[in-house]
Amino acid sequence: MSLKLNCDLGESFGSWKMGMDEAVMPHIDQANIACGFHAGDPLVLQKTLTLAKTHGVTVGAHPGYPDLVGFGRRSMNATPAEIKAMMHYQMAAVDGMAAIQGLELSYVKPHGALYNDMMKDSNVRRAIMEAVASYHKPVVLMLQGTPEAETHRAEAAEFGLTLWFEAFADRCYDDDGKLLARTREGAVHSRDKMLAQVKQLKESGTVTSVSGHTLNLHADTLCVHGDNLEGVQAIAEIRALINGEAS
Amino acid sequence: MSLKLNCDLGESFGSWKMGMDEAVMPHIDQANIACGFHAGDPLVLQKTLTLAKTHGVTVGAHPGYPDLVGFGRRSMNATPAEIKAMMHYQMAAVDGMAAIQGLELSYVKPHGALYNDMMKDSNVRRAIMEAVASYHKPVVLMLQGTPEAETHRAEAAEFGLTLWFEAFADRCYDDDGKLLARTREGAVHSRDKMLAQVKQLKESGTVTSVSGHTLNLHADTLCVHGDNLEGVQAIAEIRALINGEAS
Amino acid sequence: MSLKLNCDLGESFGSWKMGMDEAVMPHIDQANIACGFHAGDPLVLQKTLTLAKTHGVTVGAHPGYPDLVGFGRRSMNATPAEIKAMMHYQMAAVDGMAAIQGLELSYVKPHGALYNDMMKDSNVRRAIMEAVASYHKPVVLMLQGTPEAETHRAEAAEFGLTLWFEAFADRCYDDDGKLLARTREGAVHSRDKMLAQVKQLKESGTVTSVSGHTLNLHADTLCVHGDNLEGVQAIAEIRALINGEAS
Amino acid sequence: MSLKLNCDLGESFGSWKMGMDEAVMPHIDQANIACGFHAGDPLVLQKTLTLAKTHGVTVGAHPGYPDLVGFGRRSMNATPAEIKAMMHYQMAAVDGMAAIQGLELSYVKPHGALYNDMMKDSNVRRAIMEAVASYHKPVVLMLQGTPEAETHRAEAAEFGLTLWFEAFADRCYDDDGKLLARTREGAVHSRDKMLAQVKQLKESGTVTSVSGHTLNLHADTLCVHGDNLEGVQAIAEIRALINGEAS
Repeated sequence: MSLKLNCDLGESFGSWKMGMDEAVMPHIDQANIACGFHAGDPLVLQKTLTLAKTHGVTVGAHPGYPDLVGFGRRSMNATPAEIKAMMHYQMAAVDGMAAIQGLELSYVKPHGALYNDMMKDSNVRRAIMEAVASYHKPVVLMLQGTPEAETHRAEAAEFGLTLWFEAFADRCYDDDGKLLARTREGAVHSRDKMLAQVKQLKESGTVTSVSGHTLNLHADTLCVHGDNLEGVQAIAEIRALINGEAS
Repeated sequence: MSLKLNCDLGESFGSWKMGMDEAVMPHIDQANIACGFHAGDPLVLQKTLTLAKTHGVTVGAHPGYPDLVGFGRRSMNATPAEIKAMMHYQMAAVDGMAAIQGLELSYVKPHGALYNDMMKDSNVRRAIMEAVASYHKPVVLMLQGTPEAETHRAEAAEFGLTLWFEAFADRCYDDDGKLLARTREGAVHSRDKMLAQVKQLKESGTVTSVSGHTLNLHADTLCVHGDNLEGVQAIAEIRALINGEAS
Repeated sequence: MSLKLNCDLGESFGSWKMGMDEAVMPHIDQANIACGFHAGDPLVLQKTLTLAKTHGVTVGAHPGYPDLVGFGRRSMNATPAEIKAMMHYQMAAVDGMAAIQGLELSYVKPHGALYNDMMKDSNVRRAIMEAVASYHKPVVLMLQGTPEAETHRAEAAEFGLTLWFEAFADRCYDDDGKLLARTREGAVHSRDKMLAQVKQLKESGTVTSVSGHTLNLHADTLCVHGDNLEGVQAIAEIRALINGEAS
Repeated sequence: MSLKLNCDLGESFGSWKMGMDEAVMPHIDQANIACGFHAGDPLVLQKTLTLAKTHGVTVGAHPGYPDLVGFGRRSMNATPAEIKAMMHYQMAAVDGMAAIQGLELSYVKPHGALYNDMMKDSNVRRAIMEAVASYHKPVVLMLQGTPEAETHRAEAAEFGLTLWFEAFADRCYDDDGKLLARTREGAVHSRDKMLAQVKQLKESGTVTSVSGHTLNLHADTLCVHGDNLEGVQAIAEIRALINGEAS
């Protein structure tokens, strides 16, 4: 399987617009679609699905904590039962609305604080895995590719769950294979470094860490950002690079 | 088909309890389950579905306007597109969470102000019919049985939609076959009148209006209420009467 | 009193931005600040108040129906008691947060559907007047200047309430002194017609209706819009015109 | 100052009832009133204030995290700026609505997870102290009396803030002066032990810990609970005991 591109979409809410969904959708493979708890609403969800359909993009649910004003970026101390139920509800909403348009829900990628909690707290991760695995259809879980990938695979195997690992095109990795904190210098790559990182990932399955080490990093998909014109331009360049076109 | 009993359930929200769902569920046939917009939340929805499963009760979605503090009882001037999207979202949430438990979504009954708007505004009714008919699975629409039933059937036929008509056990009908306004004396029946009305509906398909006329009223199902002990007791008595047991 | 400029501000919500508040604030006299029910949140409210303070702008509360996803633009069938309580709550929130910054709440202008309902439904208008008049400090109510202005003044007098009437710079008036519906051709003025209408209002207290009649229109303040660059530029031009500068 | 009784009130929301506010209010001194973020709504707030006025009860704001479905019981990773703004907004709402009824906001007691975070995280506590101290009127902060009380007083002094410490009538204390975790046997006192603890607090300013040690515990007020009939009966008995009546 070649490297895919995934992007968060459908993050507008009511009269508030966010993201350049129309410009992004033609360039990506997988749409992480907000489900209404941290962003998105029924009409936005419907339109985003239509846009995904037009461009043949794979549909993913992008569930978050129920925190509109915080955009799902604040960790909430939810129980495993609460996490499981909020995941099921949000997956079901996207799944059913996708089916109305003849589309299928293929995967789930948790959003914001729920994603971060999944990566660092095994109780949250198990609740999420159990939620995805117990859905009534096979759905893949997308999470970050790290040096713990094998542990995560083993955990997922208990639930009979398939994982897709994502890497970040524009973020510098530390020597432990984690993302360098945004507060650190060099945390976000320039355009050239970003394209170089994508090329390296594609060709050798590795990234070069902040201090120059070469790290193995299995990635099924690259997370890209379509918040602004610069981001959309970067997506187009990454797309061309992955497709093997001269950039 | 014999006369069924339907009841609004799953109307608790977070720490707030509403309704005697455990006591009601054994006596009814059809559960109108709140979807999270006017009442209900993911955990409540999950538990209500489990309860429906335990008692073999048919699952219906009970979508409402997005108005928690108003309990969906305040009419909102929503567009047909908004109504359709909010219906689809809520139906999808119940459908997917039902499927996780091996259950099927069978029907939709709009809640509160959305129900009232459906009965009196043909634009709202058409938006609702279109929403239910365009769902990706066959789902029945439940609405009030009135002298306009044939008109409603004709409208539904345009969408290829099946209707179930409901009657009210405890409410007095006016001479036009509408419910007598709650502000009018005698609007809500005593226990004896309620049981007499159910008996008459079952045996002759008619009700006796406030001024003593006999009105034809086709009913597939009876709407009952499980908010308090008295309501639950009434449900048990109606159940016995319909089942042909001595009451 | 010279003609003032009022504008809706503080309509961002969480991560979603709306309006060009920083660009608009230097040009206006009165800020209609969203209170958190249809737009705005505690941090946005705080920042908007700080911005008003910096530019010496008068603070108004801009309360709406509790409908974030509909941006308060959908009429809700709320009772007078509900309207009064939701007004008080939103006024109190703005008032107290203004006082923390040494500012005073001067007036209230209802938002969106609540404003429209106020203009056309006397029950809603009386509930709003009662809400504003029963606040524990003197607060002015801002509403649309129409041929019913004297009726509205009489109603307000019953409550001991002061009114400020607003006119619209960029909207064409019909022969009845109402705004021409947006669906009608010529409903929104070009730049030149807008400036001409402001000039006429300032100099003669009249507007020219869609069919050429001259209508008396008392206006204390002009409603302007700062949603985009074009709107901000228009505000600057109207400001210059009102100040008597060559435009 | 004699020992006061404080109770959480105004926790109903829309159609959902919670707490026996009418039965509790006559027995208490201080009402911690929900502000609409985790419980309460404008109408409930208004009615609770009226009830407080009738019984001459001191008004406190009981602000919580913005989490209705979780009832403010889930810790949210909010920034100090977010905490300060959400406190100000909620305090302002209660303050203004109290003033409409001729009442004053006297104190603030954070709710649920916000309270717990305040007690264990000094960053949250400082944000809360700063919020209360920067309100435009003098408002007292109520928090738990613990062996850290002197530290908390010193922190509060930096902000020029007055503190009221509360103790719990029905909870067993561990040897460190903290509440024994609810999961531990004996965490919640029987009626007799509860009354004995109140008596000891009143007469000697001490409590007896789970293992029999006598601990100094300064308490300005006792937290009591009015969720059910048993709780209300306990409040009446504690009231009588504090008033020096035979129980």
